[in-house]
Amino acid sequence: MLTYTIPDDLKMPIYEYIYQCIKKDIIKGKLKAHDKLPSKRALAANLNVSVITVENAYGQLIIEGYLSAIEKKGYFVNSLQIPFSIESELSLERSEEDRTIGLDLQRNAVSASSFPIDTWSRISRKILLEKREEIFISADKKGYLPLRKAIAQHLREFSSIDAIPDQIIIGAGSEYLYNLLALLLGKERIYALEDPGHQGIERVYALNDVKHVHIKLDKEGISMKDLLESKATVAHISCAHHFPTGITTSAARRYELLKWAMANDGYIIEDDYDNEFRLKGKPIAPLYSIDNSQRVIYMNTFSKTISPTFRISYLVLPKKLKELYRQKMGFLSCPVSTFDQMILAEFIESKYFERHLNRMRNHYKGLRDALVNELKKQEYYSHIRIRESDSGLHFLLEYDYAVSDQEIAKQALKLGMKIAPLSYYYHGECVTHTLVINYSGLDIDKVKEVAKKLEMIFKEKAS
Amino acid sequence: MLTYTIPDDLKMPIYEYIYQCIKKDIIKGKLKAHDKLPSKRALAANLNVSVITVENAYGQLIIEGYLSAIEKKGYFVNSLQIPFSIESELSLERSEEDRTIGLDLQRNAVSASSFPIDTWSRISRKILLEKREEIFISADKKGYLPLRKAIAQHLREFSSIDAIPDQIIIGAGSEYLYNLLALLLGKERIYALEDPGHQGIERVYALNDVKHVHIKLDKEGISMKDLLESKATVAHISCAHHFPTGITTSAARRYELLKWAMANDGYIIEDDYDNEFRLKGKPIAPLYSIDNSQRVIYMNTFSKTISPTFRISYLVLPKKLKELYRQKMGFLSCPVSTFDQMILAEFIESKYFERHLNRMRNHYKGLRDALVNELKKQEYYSHIRIRESDSGLHFLLEYDYAVSDQEIAKQALKLGMKIAPLSYYYHGECVTHTLVINYSGLDIDKVKEVAKKLEMIFKEKAS
Repeated sequence: MLTYTIPDDLKMPIYEYIYQCIKKDIIKGKLKAHDKLPSKRALAANLNVSVITVENAYGQLIIEGYLSAIEKKGYFVNSLQIPFSIESELSLERSEEDRTIGLDLQRNAVSASSFPIDTWSRISRKILLEKREEIFISADKKGYLPLRKAIAQHLREFSSIDAIPDQIIIGAGSEYLYNLLALLLGKERIYALEDPGHQGIERVYALNDVKHVHIKLDKEGISMKDLLESKATVAHISCAHHFPTGITTSAARRYELLKWAMANDGYIIEDDYDNEFRLKGKPIAPLYSIDNSQRVIYMNTFSKTISPTFRISYLVLPKKLKELYRQKMGFLSCPVSTFDQMILAEFIESKYFERHLNRMRNHYKGLRDALVNELKKQEYYSHIRIRESDSGLHFLLEYDYAVSDQEIAKQALKLGMKIAPLSYYYHGECVTHTLVINYSGLDIDKVKEVAKKLEMIFKEKAS
Repeated sequence: MLTYTIPDDLKMPIYEYIYQCIKKDIIKGKLKAHDKLPSKRALAANLNVSVITVENAYGQLIIEGYLSAIEKKGYFVNSLQIPFSIESELSLERSEEDRTIGLDLQRNAVSASSFPIDTWSRISRKILLEKREEIFISADKKGYLPLRKAIAQHLREFSSIDAIPDQIIIGAGSEYLYNLLALLLGKERIYALEDPGHQGIERVYALNDVKHVHIKLDKEGISMKDLLESKATVAHISCAHHFPTGITTSAARRYELLKWAMANDGYIIEDDYDNEFRLKGKPIAPLYSIDNSQRVIYMNTFSKTISPTFRISYLVLPKKLKELYRQKMGFLSCPVSTFDQMILAEFIESKYFERHLNRMRNHYKGLRDALVNELKKQEYYSHIRIRESDSGLHFLLEYDYAVSDQEIAKQALKLGMKIAPLSYYYHGECVTHTLVINYSGLDIDKVKEVAKKLEMIFKEKAS
């Protein structure tokens, strides 16, 4: 007879416990194929539980196929081939990323204090009151229509991009969109990436088996000669403000690129990741806005303008790719929560987004000025040059000392400061003497600390 | 001459409307290859619009490749091979108009009124007060750690799955995870899919160039004979409750599957999409919970338990795949908003999720009972059979009439009711006489209407 002790402090229904015990005995081989189990009544009496309880346990085992009930004969263990020996494994392994770095001048962050999260929250409450039902209705596959409308409107006012909502696809971060584009344009193509450039882009292409080449930049942008020689037919570039060098692709180069795309059945992916934060003058008009050949795909994210933790990005497809998108991948659901899209739509529509951008531009300007001013006070200032500080949320700090930027970065890390060396963004091996100072996540009262730590490093390394 | 009536309350530019009309006529075959279109001037006069408007419409059709302009001859329809049958597209693809369908028994929906959105909102306010900074800190790449902990705890209590947070990866919906898994396990493998099965799964694999085969099901689950012959090394299955047939993979078949995986360096993707809603008895124990060979990858989503519009899903990787994941794709950012992950973590931790599941189970049970009771009252009840109504959020309605289920579904659509025929989920052509009744999004006061509409259809089709 089966005998199981039912614990006093059992945290599950008794029938479930009995079911578990019997199942375990079957898996372990204590109960073998064709073994007959006690009748429900007998087992109930033995375990001092109700017949119903045993019935429920047996029922579950029958549904899952461990037992068979044969009429007028009783319950029998089924024949199972269990292909492994049972051993319970216990592991207490844990992993947690280290976020203890004090000064991080590399990460893609925005400061929590500067985002109007209360406005965001107020909008979400308003939606709960007024559009509660809509939160539970699946958005259009391309993304929530009012959000795509709001983005289209914003692009028209801000970036001279004239697009209809139907051309816009909402995605969950840039990485998601890179893969989407490779699927849309085809993986038999060769994709040209900027060198130096964002490592994340290359990694996504490599992961998805997309053939890609690295093209050097000259002062006007990506090298046309190298691009032509590479046989690439897709160029993934950031025209307005190249990361990390800050180069703006010249008008002449832009038209060369468009010509190249038209002549080679090619496409240009314009990754406009931080154009909203040009700190001086007007934002650079996107390549998309001068393209009449429908060869430019525009992409942007709200990572810099709102927060990278919100995971919302978008594409603007040229009209002629719309139909291809629909046929090939129109079935894909939008990966962003409808509720979040509703809040963002209202945030943009009600002009909070525009106000936030203006405020942030001032915030970053103040931050940059404070940091640069602090650097100016330092003895080493005559040995460094600040470059490209008017565009985007980082600048380059070039120095005269012989030590490599990788060495400087290593040293900085020892002092609890994370800075990326420019050489980090090059595809091949190279030695540069430039640091990429990404100040977007820096607290303004930490600028002095940054300047001082650099002093310690330069002093040691220069001596 | 083409004649289209332009609605007074048109919500798009007139040229776009004309473009749409002509395109539809081409796709439907009303306008055939090499047909000549009227001149711009003639069509403009006929439709009483400007020549520019027609020019824009024609222009768009030329760009998209529907028309060619031949100089001095006019506009001609191009020869197109349209790779899908128009009818199935019109009847089953989801488009924006679908939302006007009165009774939708096909869509994956939850009722807005049943989700405790106020609790959700209260948690979000609490987080704003207590953890505001954290909203702006990028979550761990695999997902927000406290959410992965909460899911691990929930799985332990609810599904007999013993996993540590480090094995869990948060994704933005199931489609996102399908691709992730294909990248992880490798695209050189052949993936076995269930036939019948979710079309969405196949589409994602096809889009990502993943080789896949369709394996028939018998009463115990996926056919082992066909699986072995297919040379597949990954089986993507739903053991607990197969969609749409409701079959639960038997224990014997489960161990055969595990044996197969071990013998072929194979993996089983266990897509446990709606096991929480077993309406009678316990949820079926996942295959993952009896696998000691580390060959089963468990995946689930919050689409059914919370809402498909929240776009949160997760994987549980067997321990031995963790390191491969880290190496191959550990750099990928989690695609879900940190804030949303924080809310969900707290929602699960504070047991609101469990309470919600219990409430929903009762809700769905009530809904199913009401619907089945209503069906019982109908004359045609003796000609139908309700199958698999205890598991998940849909049941099968098998009927005796000779008419195909596709015909019934078409007829239902005409009456404003969307129901999927079982045959829709088969890979090849087949005729079945079974409707898949997905009642999860149905209002309880609409059950009578559903029963009555079915009566109208059966009456007409049976006579």
